[in-house]
Amino acid sequence: MLGKVVIVGVGLIGGSFALALKGAGAARQVVGMGRSQEALARALELGIVDSVTQSAAEAMAGADLVLLAAPVAQTGPILAALLPYLEPGTVITDAGSTKSDVVASARAALGAKVSQFIPAHPIAGRESNGPDAALAGLYQGKKAVITPLPENAAGDVGLVAAAWRLCGAIVHTLTPEQHDRIFAAVSHLPHLLAFALVDDIAKKPHAGQLFQYAASGFRDFTRIAGSSPEMWRDISLANRDALLTELDAYLAQLTVLRGRLAAHDGPGIEAIYTNAQRARRAWSEAIESAEPAQPQIQEPE
Amino acid sequence: MLGKVVIVGVGLIGGSFALALKGAGAARQVVGMGRSQEALARALELGIVDSVTQSAAEAMAGADLVLLAAPVAQTGPILAALLPYLEPGTVITDAGSTKSDVVASARAALGAKVSQFIPAHPIAGRESNGPDAALAGLYQGKKAVITPLPENAAGDVGLVAAAWRLCGAIVHTLTPEQHDRIFAAVSHLPHLLAFALVDDIAKKPHAGQLFQYAASGFRDFTRIAGSSPEMWRDISLANRDALLTELDAYLAQLTVLRGRLAAHDGPGIEAIYTNAQRARRAWSEAIESAEPAQPQIQEPE
Repeated sequence: MLGKVVIVGVGLIGGSFALALKGAGAARQVVGMGRSQEALARALELGIVDSVTQSAAEAMAGADLVLLAAPVAQTGPILAALLPYLEPGTVITDAGSTKSDVVASARAALGAKVSQFIPAHPIAGRESNGPDAALAGLYQGKKAVITPLPENAAGDVGLVAAAWRLCGAIVHTLTPEQHDRIFAAVSHLPHLLAFALVDDIAKKPHAGQLFQYAASGFRDFTRIAGSSPEMWRDISLANRDALLTELDAYLAQLTVLRGRLAAHDGPGIEAIYTNAQRARRAWSEAIESAEPAQPQIQEPE
Repeated sequence: MLGKVVIVGVGLIGGSFALALKGAGAARQVVGMGRSQEALARALELGIVDSVTQSAAEAMAGADLVLLAAPVAQTGPILAALLPYLEPGTVITDAGSTKSDVVASARAALGAKVSQFIPAHPIAGRESNGPDAALAGLYQGKKAVITPLPENAAGDVGLVAAAWRLCGAIVHTLTPEQHDRIFAAVSHLPHLLAFALVDDIAKKPHAGQLFQYAASGFRDFTRIAGSSPEMWRDISLANRDALLTELDAYLAQLTVLRGRLAAHDGPGIEAIYTNAQRARRAWSEAIESAEPAQPQIQEPE
């Protein structure tokens, strides 16, 4: 049982975490904190939190667990604001889509007390945002990745893991660097590629005609280009190095494929397509056999 | 009312066309033709066709409409086999995913009688294939693109349009060149890009770990990489010039974006992402308001 839990940022991510813990009867008290009084009021109204405050002193007093669920760029300023009131027994964690930059901000803001900061990233989301989008079941069956620091105490890491398990998540552990490389490849790069394609098409003189004939293949491929441009700009910048590495590898791949196409190399093209199809189908089958039946929730991870 | 309709290739595309016409009571007689005796027997068994033959003479005698629904690479050989028995009143059409190459093959095979060939492309499909996959409603509400030749008689073009409308499709007209450029951009390139990404990831040493953390964004983006590698190799080669043009434009776009990422150009990155998101959402809303409620059928067009 967690005692006092503080949610900094009462939107989709923080709100769902709060609802899940409350639903599990796992928190004695949930306090909401954030910049928007309107969001805080709405979270209170919806029963997502028991009380709200914009005072760090009030929030941090006797806090057991603090979840940072605000844009990753705010990590440093938020931690700096909390630091004066950070008690020795309090564990702080986050939910940011990138980890190395968050860790660097945390080290800069907290100094030695970074030992109390357990970086994490729940892999879940929806296209909607704000407190009204929060769902108690958002994390059910989803992965939550913890990227512990060498300074973290095992018990504190365990507390964060336990909290995510109470939300129904399956906890995985990676280093911040592993996390950023993995998500650069399977999440950040695809988003960049989809945004790039749709912008490319939209800027063509006959764009209207192109969109007129775009069908379900295009729809699936570009769905993630409907995501928040600001959030993905931030993620792209935050994970820039890993993303550049992945993008460069992909550009090299496209150059090879371009060469085979230009050379009319059917077997060479087929080799790439076949390997991809086999891998995609194997992955798809593994996913389907592993996942329990879930509601249709998008994961802009 | 169509009299004798011949379907060359009794798989998903040809079979669904036959079922739709039969369902509309629009064909007096449907004859199946093809290379696989097994597929023909199955189509007969399923009631997709009224009779089957592997004799061009038998198939073409008194035929009103002939649909080529075989791989586009077989266009030339099939037309050459039909030519000796092609009667003046018969209209031949096709369903190929590319048009300029099909037109070239048809001109080479039929000579002056290319006037009787009306190139077309129904934009519909499913991940399954063969006669068992055929559905009478496959084309309901979908687009069918006709790319008439200068030599085609208006009445013959009208016959093909009417046939597709009887299947429930909405008929559009483009030149073969317009068709190939449009579908290079919104269909063929996305397939190439998805295959390239999945192959790239699958070849990495830590591919297993990457697939482990891939979630719904990756799933949507790479869904079309589960498509037939042979079919897409053929489409890529058949539409090579237009596809190279689109791929080169996209490579240029990625190079620009890479530069902005390397330069930490947040506003520059956001500009591309924002333009893409707006275009994607506008298109998505236009699609949703235009489409009638439809069964969930994939369209690997």
